[in-house]
Amino acid sequence: MDVIKVAGNSRTSAVAGAIAGVFREHQYAEVQAIGAGAVNQAIKALVLATKYLEKDGYHIAFVPCFSDVEIDGKVRTAVKMSVEGHVPNPARISNEPME
Amino acid sequence: MDVIKVAGNSRTSAVAGAIAGVFREHQYAEVQAIGAGAVNQAIKALVLATKYLEKDGYHIAFVPCFSDVEIDGKVRTAVKMSVEGHVPNPARISNEPME
Repeated sequence: MDVIKVAGNSRTSAVAGAIAGVFREHQYAEVQAIGAGAVNQAIKALVLATKYLEKDGYHIAFVPCFSDVEIDGKVRTAVKMSVEGHVPNPARISNEPME
Repeated sequence: MDVIKVAGNSRTSAVAGAIAGVFREHQYAEVQAIGAGAVNQAIKALVLATKYLEKDGYHIAFVPCFSDVEIDGKVRTAVKMSVEGHVPNPARISNEPME
């Protein structure tokens, strides 16, 4: 399973489609971003992917961690986000604090 | 329960401590960030908060959404992240793809 790599200029809808596609196949996906712009695009893509997958009956959440990756011989710290199936918190649903 | 607001210059360890504190009390927390720098700080804080809470036996994940907020009379789009208890995906744990 490939890690979905996000850049600061990645299109969020394209990334969201990739996340949803990988998740439908594996019930799991991984997203990697380096730098504030890329992390921001990744999170926006995850919002969209969450909506896409809800239409298919999947509820997802994600777990972030740091990960050192080597790019052009330099070690950089990436944020890796593990996209996993999730049971939504009833508090969020009944109180709708997210709207 | 207060929403934890993160800015681009927020200290990640302070934000992580706030997230862990709210989660310990409510088994739920909400984090709000506006702009790429703030979203990046929020994600870094969530990585730390995940580690803090694991020491207490909690596994967390988060679900992001967009949220319109009014600041100084202008409507801006924030990213709101719902921090929830979560059952970790066995694939992530056994394969350790996050390391």
